[in-house]
Amino acid sequence: MLKNISSTKVFDGWHKQYKHQSSSVSGEMQFAVFLPPGVSENNKMPVLYWLSGLTCTDENFMQKAGALKLAAELGVVIVAPDTSPRGEAVADDDSYDLGQGAGFYLNAVKQPWAKHYQMYDYVVKELPKLIESEFPVTNKKSISGHSMGGHGALTIALKNPTEYASASAFSPICNPSDCPWGIKAFSAYLGEEKSLWAQYDTVELIKSSSDFVPTLIDQGLDDNFYPEQLKTLELKKVAEEYDYDVEVNMREGYDHSYYFISSFIDIHLQFHLKHLLM
Amino acid sequence: MLKNISSTKVFDGWHKQYKHQSSSVSGEMQFAVFLPPGVSENNKMPVLYWLSGLTCTDENFMQKAGALKLAAELGVVIVAPDTSPRGEAVADDDSYDLGQGAGFYLNAVKQPWAKHYQMYDYVVKELPKLIESEFPVTNKKSISGHSMGGHGALTIALKNPTEYASASAFSPICNPSDCPWGIKAFSAYLGEEKSLWAQYDTVELIKSSSDFVPTLIDQGLDDNFYPEQLKTLELKKVAEEYDYDVEVNMREGYDHSYYFISSFIDIHLQFHLKHLLM
Repeated sequence: MLKNISSTKVFDGWHKQYKHQSSSVSGEMQFAVFLPPGVSENNKMPVLYWLSGLTCTDENFMQKAGALKLAAELGVVIVAPDTSPRGEAVADDDSYDLGQGAGFYLNAVKQPWAKHYQMYDYVVKELPKLIESEFPVTNKKSISGHSMGGHGALTIALKNPTEYASASAFSPICNPSDCPWGIKAFSAYLGEEKSLWAQYDTVELIKSSSDFVPTLIDQGLDDNFYPEQLKTLELKKVAEEYDYDVEVNMREGYDHSYYFISSFIDIHLQFHLKHLLM
Repeated sequence: MLKNISSTKVFDGWHKQYKHQSSSVSGEMQFAVFLPPGVSENNKMPVLYWLSGLTCTDENFMQKAGALKLAAELGVVIVAPDTSPRGEAVADDDSYDLGQGAGFYLNAVKQPWAKHYQMYDYVVKELPKLIESEFPVTNKKSISGHSMGGHGALTIALKNPTEYASASAFSPICNPSDCPWGIKAFSAYLGEEKSLWAQYDTVELIKSSSDFVPTLIDQGLDDNFYPEQLKTLELKKVAEEYDYDVEVNMREGYDHSYYFISSFIDIHLQFHLKHLLM
């Protein structure tokens, strides 16, 4: 059951926020949706899922990315879930890069995390089903995200190539098995079994992918977290080696912020729309 | 002396934040500036000053308005000051609508406020002089703002009609002498002398204006603060009565948020640029 918690008119469409009980995470989840003008049961539109980065909620993208103007024109619904389950009953950690706000879009197997941190199932299985039953959308979908959310978007598309028309990412964590953020999170959520880590690692997934999702990546070269946490060139190298056709744009002077995202989000929206309409 | 505290590339231009010692407010002030691509001493550009609303800082507009894409294309510098002086030495109040974050763009005459709360002088006299000496800008300027900042933009333009090419506002507090926010702030900052209040009240200033600044206002009709705090129709009525040609757009379904601002900011930028280039 969806509980509407806000409705705000924007670009003649609507930004709405909802809470609902999620069976995947065994608790309440929050998400935001942008509904372009004219969307209706007689005029269903495709969906772009946006996955945010560490510390973010459903709000950052909607407020700061500057995406809604073109999304309204193109006619694409945007859905932005929160980055983890939340609340007093949900395990947490004092650091910003583990626990609440840092779900890494995986299914945790280690306690205390496994009880609620099932964000992979939430984003891949539960949320699209809910969106498709409650909103006037088609079953065509693409996925994008930033940083931890870029990792989420790329891994989810690679693991479900027939489900997504296209994938894109800004400043994604490309190789979490081999960077400080990823090693910390994966050790906690997944334990020491490295074959399990590989299932949530873009660089590793490209090596074993049998299918292809059109993929676009933008990375700023003045990003504080580049290259150490993001390993973009590792992804590029493996993609070339395995003949996986990813467009990677290195953007001189840009950092890790939403100012960077806003500068190139229209290119990503156009990219997704092209594939959503194919 | 300007102290640069951040530089972020955006739309091929730069978003920068600065701190400096302000003689007007006898303390440190912070502002943000957007420098479009190509601006230089050989290619100076005009400036739009943006005044934010209650509780805001120099950051809200730059992050949430979605203005920088078109500003980059049009070639207009944007300067967004903080909404008040700040710091432990600066008088404050527990409520959100008085003291720090709520300077109301006036010169306070009552203590403890008068010592630092001289935002009118800061925005009208000190800041443009500083901007014009430190950045590659022309002396052409326009002014805009939101809510309390809309009040600031309209009153400042009305009091300095030869200084500003144009003025605009989203959801402005049009008649602060006669609304709860304004009565509270003006009583504290200005005391009981109503003739002084009239000098910072758009509705009153229109009655006595001898000169004209092209003016554009957008007001959402689902704004929580409309009409009680904003009194837009009072402004409209007085403007008609005194033959002051203000364009007031009532926007059905829109609220008081930056989602509303982002939906119409491009129209305001185009409006200002037209007058800045005349």
